[in-house]
Amino acid sequence: MKGINLGLIGFGNVGSGVVRILRDRRVFLAEKSGLQINIKKICDKDFSVKRGVNVDKSLLARSAQEVIDDPQIDIVVELIGGVHPAKDYISASLKKGKDIVTANKALLAQEGRSLFAEAALRGKNIYFEASVGAGIPIIKALREGLIANRFNSIFGILNGTSNYILSSMSSNNCDFQSALKEAQKKGFAEKDPTLDIEGIDSAHKLILLTYLCFGKFVKMEDIFIEGISQISLSDVIYAKELGLEIKLLAIAKKEGKELEVRVHPTLIPEDNLLASVNGVFNAIHVTSDLAGDLLFYGPGAGQMSAASAVVSDIVDLAQDIKAGLFRPAMSIIEDKSVQRLSSIEEFRSRYYIRFMALDKPGVLAKISGILAKYGISIASVTQKERHKAHIVPIVMIVHESNEKYLRHALMQIDRLDVIKEKPVAIRIEEI
Amino acid sequence: MKGINLGLIGFGNVGSGVVRILRDRRVFLAEKSGLQINIKKICDKDFSVKRGVNVDKSLLARSAQEVIDDPQIDIVVELIGGVHPAKDYISASLKKGKDIVTANKALLAQEGRSLFAEAALRGKNIYFEASVGAGIPIIKALREGLIANRFNSIFGILNGTSNYILSSMSSNNCDFQSALKEAQKKGFAEKDPTLDIEGIDSAHKLILLTYLCFGKFVKMEDIFIEGISQISLSDVIYAKELGLEIKLLAIAKKEGKELEVRVHPTLIPEDNLLASVNGVFNAIHVTSDLAGDLLFYGPGAGQMSAASAVVSDIVDLAQDIKAGLFRPAMSIIEDKSVQRLSSIEEFRSRYYIRFMALDKPGVLAKISGILAKYGISIASVTQKERHKAHIVPIVMIVHESNEKYLRHALMQIDRLDVIKEKPVAIRIEEI
Repeated sequence: MKGINLGLIGFGNVGSGVVRILRDRRVFLAEKSGLQINIKKICDKDFSVKRGVNVDKSLLARSAQEVIDDPQIDIVVELIGGVHPAKDYISASLKKGKDIVTANKALLAQEGRSLFAEAALRGKNIYFEASVGAGIPIIKALREGLIANRFNSIFGILNGTSNYILSSMSSNNCDFQSALKEAQKKGFAEKDPTLDIEGIDSAHKLILLTYLCFGKFVKMEDIFIEGISQISLSDVIYAKELGLEIKLLAIAKKEGKELEVRVHPTLIPEDNLLASVNGVFNAIHVTSDLAGDLLFYGPGAGQMSAASAVVSDIVDLAQDIKAGLFRPAMSIIEDKSVQRLSSIEEFRSRYYIRFMALDKPGVLAKISGILAKYGISIASVTQKERHKAHIVPIVMIVHESNEKYLRHALMQIDRLDVIKEKPVAIRIEEI
Repeated sequence: MKGINLGLIGFGNVGSGVVRILRDRRVFLAEKSGLQINIKKICDKDFSVKRGVNVDKSLLARSAQEVIDDPQIDIVVELIGGVHPAKDYISASLKKGKDIVTANKALLAQEGRSLFAEAALRGKNIYFEASVGAGIPIIKALREGLIANRFNSIFGILNGTSNYILSSMSSNNCDFQSALKEAQKKGFAEKDPTLDIEGIDSAHKLILLTYLCFGKFVKMEDIFIEGISQISLSDVIYAKELGLEIKLLAIAKKEGKELEVRVHPTLIPEDNLLASVNGVFNAIHVTSDLAGDLLFYGPGAGQMSAASAVVSDIVDLAQDIKAGLFRPAMSIIEDKSVQRLSSIEEFRSRYYIRFMALDKPGVLAKISGILAKYGISIASVTQKERHKAHIVPIVMIVHESNEKYLRHALMQIDRLDVIKEKPVAIRIEEI
C-alpha cells in the first residue's frame, strides 16, 4: 500500500483535530482509500499549548521551512489562518511540487486567484473544502457532483455566529447586544466579533462559492456588504408578523448578463428552508440548471467538523497523487454569459421599511407622497402600537423597487420633521 | 486529450437526457475534466419513440450485447431499470472489463451485494449517484466528502411522489385519494403508484444509503415498511394542531449495537428542516460523528436532474480510468459496532394515537386502563369535535413505548364495543 506523506503547518484547533482523525482512524481510512496517510512533520509557532492529542516529538518541526523543504512530503496542510505568512508557505510549497490542503478562506478570498494560477502552472492542486461550511461537502458537490451544471444563484447562510445571533433574537425576543453577549459566552462569537457580524467572513466564503459556480474571482470591494449589527429586535418581530424571517445571506445571483454579489441581512418567507436554519448552522442553497434547487446544511464551524473536511481533501489528493492524476485548474471555467458585476444601486428588490413617525394626521400622506415620487409602490402598510409618547412605528412592504431610488426616497423622508428616527430598510428575497 | 468511450443501454427519459448533456456540453465538460467523453453506442429496445434528441444513426446498436462486446467501450451506462435483464447486462459488462454507471435502485437494492463484489473482483466500479435523490450528490458526499466519518443515523424523504401527496394533504386539506389523483394528473405519480406510496421505492434507496453509511447490505425483508395509503386527512390536521408534520421517512438508526432500518409515515416537529421539505423534493438528513448533523435537499426525480448525476459519475469514472486509478470496493467498510438488525417489535418511540369512540362516560377510563396495563404512559390527550353522531375522535400522544406492547394494547382497545374504527398509531421521531 503506497504511503502519502503530510506536512502540517499549524497545529491549533483544526490541526490537532486532523491529527486525531488520521491517527485514530488510520486503519479505517486505509481500508476505505487503499492508502496509508502518514504525518511526516508538524510545525507550529508554539507547541507549549495543550492540543488534546499526543504526537511523537520526532514529528515536530522547528519551522514551516523545514516542512516545505522536506522532499518526502507530498501534501502540505496549511491551517494557520490569515493571509501572511500563509500565502508564502503555500506558494513555497507549490514551488517544491507539493499539493495543498487549506481551510483558509480569508487567504483564498484575497489571494486565491494567483495561488490557483500558480498551482495550475505547476500541475498541483489546492483543496479547500473546510473553508466554506466546515464539514458540509459543498465544494466537492459544486466541483464534482454538479460538474455538468450551470448555476443561476447561490444563497448562503455562511456565518454561524451571525446566524446564531439572529436566530436567538428571533426565538428569544432579545436584542442584538444581548444575543451577541450570549454568543460570546457560549464560545460562538469572538471577543471582537467584527469579521463575523459585519459580513466579512461571509463575503470571503461567497467569493469562493462564486468562483466555483460562475468561474469569476470577484474582489472584496466588488461585493456589497452590510452586517447585522444594525438589526433591531422590533424589526425581527414585525417581520415575523408578516411571515418573514431575517437571515444574513451571502448572495450571488445572475440577472441576465449581470452578476449580483452581495452580503446583507435579508428577509425571507418563513416557509423557505433557509428560514428554518437556526443557531450556528450553515446552509447553502444553489439553483442549478439541470439538478434544480439544492440545499446543503450542516454545522458551519467546529474543530472536528472542519477536520473532517480537511481529511476528505487529503484523501482525495492522496488518491490523485498515487495515480498521478491531476484534476486541472480546479475544474472551474468562466461562465461567459456573465458580462459584468452589477452594483447595488442598480439592484431591485422588494423591501421591508420601518419609519418612526409622530402620530398625527397627514404623516402617511407625506411618506407615501415621497415614495410615489421615486416610483416606489407600497404593497402593504401597518401602523404598530405606540412606542413612546406620540411616536409610532409604521411598517411597509414595498413592491420591487430600485435600490438607488429607494435610498433617495428614504433620505428625503428622513428629513421630514415628523420622522423621529432614521428609516430602516431590509431587502426581501423570494429565493 | 484522451477520449473515454461510453456505451448506453437504455435510451428513455434519463438516457436521452444524458445524451443531451454530453452533446450540448461537450466543450464545457472537456474543459472542466480534461477529457473527451464520446458516446460510442446506444441501444434501446425501441427507437421509434421520439427522444427529443437527435443522434447519429451509426451510434444505434441493435442489441445490448453489441454494446457489451465492443472492446472500445470503457464505461457502460445502464438506464433500462428493473432487475432483469439489467443485472445480466451489468454482469456481462464487468466481465468484459468495463466500468458501470447506473441509476437502477431496484436492481442494486436486490442484487447490489453480488454486483459490487463482482466489480471489486475485476477491479472495476459501479457508480450509482442517480439512484438516490436524483441530482443531489448524496452518494458522493457519503463516500468521499464524509470519508472520515462514522454515522449514527439516516432520515430520508426519498420518494417524491409520497412527499408530494403528504404535502398536498397538509397544505390543501385534501384526502389521500384526491391528493394521489392530483399527483397522477401532474405526472408525479404513476398510474399504478404502489411502489411509491407503499414505501418500496424508499426502501430500495434506504438499502443503498444504509450500505454507504454502515457498510451493511440489508435485505428488503429485513426492513419494516409501511406506506402512506392509510393516512387520513384528519390525522394530518390533528397532528398539525400538535405542531407535528407527517412525512414518509426512510430511517436507519444505530441504537447501541443494533441497527433499526425502517420506512413508515412519521410525525416530526414542524420546526425540523425535514418538515419543510414539500412537494416532489427529497432530503436526506445524516448524523455523522465528526461533521455533525447534515442535510442534503433537492428534486428527487426528473429527467435532467437524474442525468446530471449520471454525467457526474461518468466524469469521475473517466478520470479514474484515464489515470488507471481504482477506488476499491466503493470505499465502504462495515461498521462492526453494529451487531444485528433490530426488529420493529423491539422498537420504542413516542406515538400519536387516534381512537374513534362513542361519546359517553367511562370511555377514556377504559382506553387509558388498557394502555396502563401495557406500561404505556399518556403524555397528552385531546377530545376533538364530534365526527358523526355520538362518535368522537380522541387524540393522544404517548410517551416512549414499546411497539409490541402498543400493538397489543391497540388490539385490545379495538375490541371494546365503544370503539367504532380501528385505532390509528403513527410513530413520532425527534431527529
